[in-house]
Amino acid sequence: MGRHTLEYPKTKTNTVRRKSDRASYALEAIHSLINSSPLLNVAFNTPDNDSPFPTILPMIGHMGSFDRPSADLGDPLDLYLHGYVSSRMMNLARSSSSSSSSSPQDKEQEQEQGLPVCISASHVDALILATSPFNHSYNYRSATLFGHATLVTDDAEKLYAMELITNGVVPDRWRTSRQPPTPAEMQSTSILRVSISSGSAKFRDGGVHDDRHDLEDADAQGKVWTGVLPVFSRIGDPIPTEYNKVDTPANVTDFVREYNKQNEEYVLAAAKK
Amino acid sequence: MGRHTLEYPKTKTNTVRRKSDRASYALEAIHSLINSSPLLNVAFNTPDNDSPFPTILPMIGHMGSFDRPSADLGDPLDLYLHGYVSSRMMNLARSSSSSSSSSPQDKEQEQEQGLPVCISASHVDALILATSPFNHSYNYRSATLFGHATLVTDDAEKLYAMELITNGVVPDRWRTSRQPPTPAEMQSTSILRVSISSGSAKFRDGGVHDDRHDLEDADAQGKVWTGVLPVFSRIGDPIPTEYNKVDTPANVTDFVREYNKQNEEYVLAAAKK
Repeated sequence: MGRHTLEYPKTKTNTVRRKSDRASYALEAIHSLINSSPLLNVAFNTPDNDSPFPTILPMIGHMGSFDRPSADLGDPLDLYLHGYVSSRMMNLARSSSSSSSSSPQDKEQEQEQGLPVCISASHVDALILATSPFNHSYNYRSATLFGHATLVTDDAEKLYAMELITNGVVPDRWRTSRQPPTPAEMQSTSILRVSISSGSAKFRDGGVHDDRHDLEDADAQGKVWTGVLPVFSRIGDPIPTEYNKVDTPANVTDFVREYNKQNEEYVLAAAKK
Repeated sequence: MGRHTLEYPKTKTNTVRRKSDRASYALEAIHSLINSSPLLNVAFNTPDNDSPFPTILPMIGHMGSFDRPSADLGDPLDLYLHGYVSSRMMNLARSSSSSSSSSPQDKEQEQEQGLPVCISASHVDALILATSPFNHSYNYRSATLFGHATLVTDDAEKLYAMELITNGVVPDRWRTSRQPPTPAEMQSTSILRVSISSGSAKFRDGGVHDDRHDLEDADAQGKVWTGVLPVFSRIGDPIPTEYNKVDTPANVTDFVREYNKQNEEYVLAAAKK
């Protein structure tokens, strides 16, 4: 793979219907958005709960492939989740799957087992202030995945996912923190693997799009400020613990610098498109 | 109202089970978080879709009360939604409610009608880098609401919600942009009113919480940097359109200044708690 741009097939579930020119089905675009989001929104139903509502939990996760760790972002990948999970969700994922073996053949068989989930990640990149409230908008990037979540029980796969997710928060943080995990830590950490069925991304960039009748309205143009307010996420100066004995390592300072640079550059470039 | 701190009743649907000391059911805390979030995640099921998955859409919304516009954030409120809505969701909300009259009596009758939705908003306030990967965490604030969504068909209520939502993006933006909306704009704008059944909030603040055995591990403490990376959303300098003829108005410059000041102050104060 890598020679073709892989896309998720368009189905009833994932097809973007409104402003479809803003949609993308490319695995790389979708997986990149998921990986650059510090929190993912994970929706699922609780059939045992007498509740008509789906539930959304904010969780931490990262795309990866335990069977082929060198896979690219544009390859088919699983989503590994770890986060503020009520045991309710873990129980649902456990009860809806009989096995969590990771052999490719088993994976295929259990594809339609597991807890059906929807995962969403989004960034707001700018507030777009037009002449008319109706033409106000946001620049944004948003990705959605659909798949089946099962509990990872294999210790090697769990370790792979814990390293993947930790390094997704700060590059190289796994190796540079206390290793290895204790048996108690392994035991009390729960990881979900989501086999992805489909997905889509949607984005807006550019500036204000005013209607012609507003542009020709001298009264409105003489009164209304129009423009873009760029929005970006920033990381401030690292605050060491009182007992910290170590200089701030390069992986942390590099990460903070690159995070701030890349976010601001993307947002300002998108506003000018 | 206003003399008591109102809370959403704890039910099977909204009760926070894990780390319940981090939970809040206070209407004011939950509604404030919803209102301070530029994008809301809205989950719903699509029963006509042959799909086992709930869907999440990012949408723009604000808490309000059409019947009592002066209501406080701590009062029972509706959530008004407007956003990147596929017509699918609007159709579901339309087909699952026979009326969207806004008289209090009718509202009560239709409370259990409408499309069941879950709404979630979350802020990441800091990355918490502990000695062991297992004790890594985030400072965050997260709110969840459950309710039934119906399409607003009354023009006065629609106008109320459009003003509420626009002013939720930038204070006083409605009055300071081109008014009134054209009939075509009114016609093509869809607003959902969500009658809230229950909700909860969850948060973490403070610094690193390391286990005693890690604090006493001289080898680990000699190697691992521990501390907090504060994360905050910033708005950059306003970028006027090429055809803009108006000085940046005070409501915009005040908003940008206050947004940046409040976000950074909250995040740094939370890290020190």
